[in-house]
Amino acid sequence: MTSLPILVLDLAGTFAFAISGATLGVRKQLDLFGVLVLSFAAATAGGIARDVLIGAVPPVALADWRYLAVSLLAGLVTFHAHERVERLRNPVQLFDAVGLALFAVTGAGKALAAGLGPSGAVMLGMLSGIGGGIARDLLVAEIPIVLRREFYAVAALLGAACVVAGDALGWPAALSAIGGAVLCFALRFMAIRHGWQLPVGGGGPPRR
Amino acid sequence: MTSLPILVLDLAGTFAFAISGATLGVRKQLDLFGVLVLSFAAATAGGIARDVLIGAVPPVALADWRYLAVSLLAGLVTFHAHERVERLRNPVQLFDAVGLALFAVTGAGKALAAGLGPSGAVMLGMLSGIGGGIARDLLVAEIPIVLRREFYAVAALLGAACVVAGDALGWPAALSAIGGAVLCFALRFMAIRHGWQLPVGGGGPPRR
Amino acid sequence: MTSLPILVLDLAGTFAFAISGATLGVRKQLDLFGVLVLSFAAATAGGIARDVLIGAVPPVALADWRYLAVSLLAGLVTFHAHERVERLRNPVQLFDAVGLALFAVTGAGKALAAGLGPSGAVMLGMLSGIGGGIARDLLVAEIPIVLRREFYAVAALLGAACVVAGDALGWPAALSAIGGAVLCFALRFMAIRHGWQLPVGGGGPPRR
Repeated sequence: MTSLPILVLDLAGTFAFAISGATLGVRKQLDLFGVLVLSFAAATAGGIARDVLIGAVPPVALADWRYLAVSLLAGLVTFHAHERVERLRNPVQLFDAVGLALFAVTGAGKALAAGLGPSGAVMLGMLSGIGGGIARDLLVAEIPIVLRREFYAVAALLGAACVVAGDALGWPAALSAIGGAVLCFALRFMAIRHGWQLPVGGGGPPRR
Repeated sequence: MTSLPILVLDLAGTFAFAISGATLGVRKQLDLFGVLVLSFAAATAGGIARDVLIGAVPPVALADWRYLAVSLLAGLVTFHAHERVERLRNPVQLFDAVGLALFAVTGAGKALAAGLGPSGAVMLGMLSGIGGGIARDLLVAEIPIVLRREFYAVAALLGAACVVAGDALGWPAALSAIGGAVLCFALRFMAIRHGWQLPVGGGGPPRR
Repeated sequence: MTSLPILVLDLAGTFAFAISGATLGVRKQLDLFGVLVLSFAAATAGGIARDVLIGAVPPVALADWRYLAVSLLAGLVTFHAHERVERLRNPVQLFDAVGLALFAVTGAGKALAAGLGPSGAVMLGMLSGIGGGIARDLLVAEIPIVLRREFYAVAALLGAACVVAGDALGWPAALSAIGGAVLCFALRFMAIRHGWQLPVGGGGPPRR
């Protein structure tokens, strides 16, 4: 069903997202199981949502045990080595950027293969990238970072758009996939490093 | 797939809900992208949930670029004209009531067309109406207004029930759709204007 | 589609979960409708998620009016008798444990019938059990209890695993279902009674 390169990218992104989920879980003082749940949710929610929306059920993240295994491995490693992980500078954001790029690209490819049009494929690629992070943050009752860090979702959007454009222009799928992933990661990394921000509406402190 | 009148009603409701989402996003000081995400979520989450639950995938909100375009337009207008929008009295609630009525009615119709029984069609009509508002509120980590304003969901429920009853009685679809939409909007508008409330259980201040 | 024993177990679990949802709704001072929405969400979200993930749409909880009727009945009873319900010791947790055991077992069985592999069936069984509670807690903007009470999800996991193992070993379905349900409930009950906890990562107070 999935070609080998896509499977490898998917599992790598799964590991990266699972670490970001586990790190947040440890920070929130969840117990071991809560940390593993957050690992799996952060790693697979975006892909599961994409698969459900294109009718590819059961989602590959549930049908293929390797996604679960990789998520649990990443969660256990983070749970037991969290101090070392925390010592790294912003590990959550960095791993998050890797997973974002990989998932946005593979997600857009799967959406195109499922017959979605350009706008739908870009949306689903972005969702594949940001869905896990949204689920991760909502599960600990926080406003998803994606709504507060514009270059997060914009980076995924552009990475997915690169894949869709490459498909429309007849480029080799691998080429546009690599290009899209590099573009997405680079944008997100720069946004973190240089604190890029989009304008905020209203003004004054947030009203609750 | 969708008849013209239903498409027009859908896009009108999409615009209305997107404005309610964008207005909340601006109030919460989300950045431009967060505001647009909230616009799209508020506008399409209910319909997407309905389509997934009846197996109509990919959901029309993703397959048809016009829903995305209308959501982004409403989001951009609200982002840049938020002060004028805020100056209107309770714009969120008013636009919300319009979208609620339109979505409850079209959602019930689509559920019937998908073969759902009466109770299922009423539930899905109500979900089509309230799903966007629930997603909108949850994305900013708030208890959905639907759980605190009883005539919100009840209005959607009765609007959808009107469509289901009309179908059972063999009325023309357009007639019961218009009747249901007017009934839903009128009830919601009166509830806002007169502060209609349902009884609250327990007593004393909320415990957290 | 569903055998009688499974239907009866399903409706019993629905009633139990609906009461846990309604009790939380009353505690949060939601109005009558909010309480009923929470009843239905707590009772059916797990099963609906499972059905969507295995492609069994429309979900039985929407197609079969009895799930709605049972949820509303439980919600109304709890709303009007909440003081008596509250006087019982931890009614939410106890009813929750009953629903957890019943849903984990029936969910795993449905996943196997849908062709899921062992790991997928265990995951979906657990999701059937914990999904309603997750939806219930998220709808009132709280971190789901499942992420903070390890033996909650672990109990569901082991109950579902018992059904999957029994299927692999060719045991009679009813036997492994009853065994799994008893195992799950017993573990959850002991965890509540003896305050079983899993290790928590990090250390020090939660950082927000």
